[in-house]
Amino acid sequence: MNARGQAGTNFQAGFLVFPGVQLLDLAGPLEVFGLVPGVRLRLIWKALELIPSSSGVLLKPSDQLGSCPQLDLLCVPGGPGIDPLLGDKEVLEFVRKQAEGVEYLTSVCTGALLLGTAGLLRGYRATTHWSATALLPSLGATYQSGRVVEDRNRVTAGGVTAGIDFGLRLVAKIWGEDQAQRVQLRLEYRPDPPFQAGHPDTAPRRITEQAEQELATRRERRAELLRKLLDN
Amino acid sequence: MNARGQAGTNFQAGFLVFPGVQLLDLAGPLEVFGLVPGVRLRLIWKALELIPSSSGVLLKPSDQLGSCPQLDLLCVPGGPGIDPLLGDKEVLEFVRKQAEGVEYLTSVCTGALLLGTAGLLRGYRATTHWSATALLPSLGATYQSGRVVEDRNRVTAGGVTAGIDFGLRLVAKIWGEDQAQRVQLRLEYRPDPPFQAGHPDTAPRRITEQAEQELATRRERRAELLRKLLDN
Repeated sequence: MNARGQAGTNFQAGFLVFPGVQLLDLAGPLEVFGLVPGVRLRLIWKALELIPSSSGVLLKPSDQLGSCPQLDLLCVPGGPGIDPLLGDKEVLEFVRKQAEGVEYLTSVCTGALLLGTAGLLRGYRATTHWSATALLPSLGATYQSGRVVEDRNRVTAGGVTAGIDFGLRLVAKIWGEDQAQRVQLRLEYRPDPPFQAGHPDTAPRRITEQAEQELATRRERRAELLRKLLDN
Repeated sequence: MNARGQAGTNFQAGFLVFPGVQLLDLAGPLEVFGLVPGVRLRLIWKALELIPSSSGVLLKPSDQLGSCPQLDLLCVPGGPGIDPLLGDKEVLEFVRKQAEGVEYLTSVCTGALLLGTAGLLRGYRATTHWSATALLPSLGATYQSGRVVEDRNRVTAGGVTAGIDFGLRLVAKIWGEDQAQRVQLRLEYRPDPPFQAGHPDTAPRRITEQAEQELATRRERRAELLRKLLDN
């Protein structure tokens, strides 16, 4: 138990949301933090209108970039919609400004790329979705293998479902292991994947090739976009 | 690969949503099914207005109970908001009507209780969130230990995060193991929980006692509600 004591009284946990955010990137850590008593959750975007997540489910932001108070933790989830944000001045400015005051600056999945183009991973070890780890060095970050990578106050998670492991680790760090274990139990998080296909290191080669094929167009566009942004 | 072939062309996967639904109960299987090409996802509720999930995040339903077409799969997620639905005639009628035509009738977490009060688990083996398994016999179901329990076309998952394992198992069953493995890889589902606290069987006793304390009021109210409903 650290100085924050038993519960997250008035701990402000903010999640950037955007058109094309991957719902599960967001829902994992959000539910983990949401079960800590006293944590205030915020979903932050430019406007308060409904935004479509990558699967089409519509979400309602609770706060706008310009009027969101200083957060204790900012988490940037990923998803196909992250790409248009990588050079978006309003979003980059918001993230940079929050970064000055947050206790933890974090990402899940390809959300790390936004922290990267904001210059906030320069000199840090980090991770992202397995399909995007090769992009980290161009952002000044050192890729470190691992489902959750912590370097000073930057905490980055791997792809999508890594957000659950990430959330539990952070809750343990901030409010103690007992709090994290209570949350894990409430969420019945005793995973039992039917296959060993959760990472290219363990998936059958044909499965990795097929998944890479599915992601090929997106990856090429993303790499091209980053080249342009980093040239400027 | 079964008769449905390579992809989920026009496969209708519907999720009941409601005020107080647990977002992660929903987001896990929804993202798993959403990565199968051709699957049509629907979020179904009485009205199309925004509804608050248990953590406060606002969701927008896509379909109404009365006008939702026949689904291929119906999934009822859980959450604190399931209780008011257990005796709700409009909801029970929707579930019973869909049950006649679906290929799979499913639930995650305490969603099983709604299938139960609709009479649709009578004579079936099933599971639910660990805190609610003791209620299954009163609904005519036999509790079977396991993260995902399949009995004929009823597939029930344990608490919250079990929805991910559930989704992958069903995708494997419907569209084959390669499809399920591709989805698992896309979601980077190689879980690494920091503690062994995901189930009362493995959690430290004090953690289970604390979590049971947190849930005590809700459990008592739910048991009382079920007694009243089943007396009528």
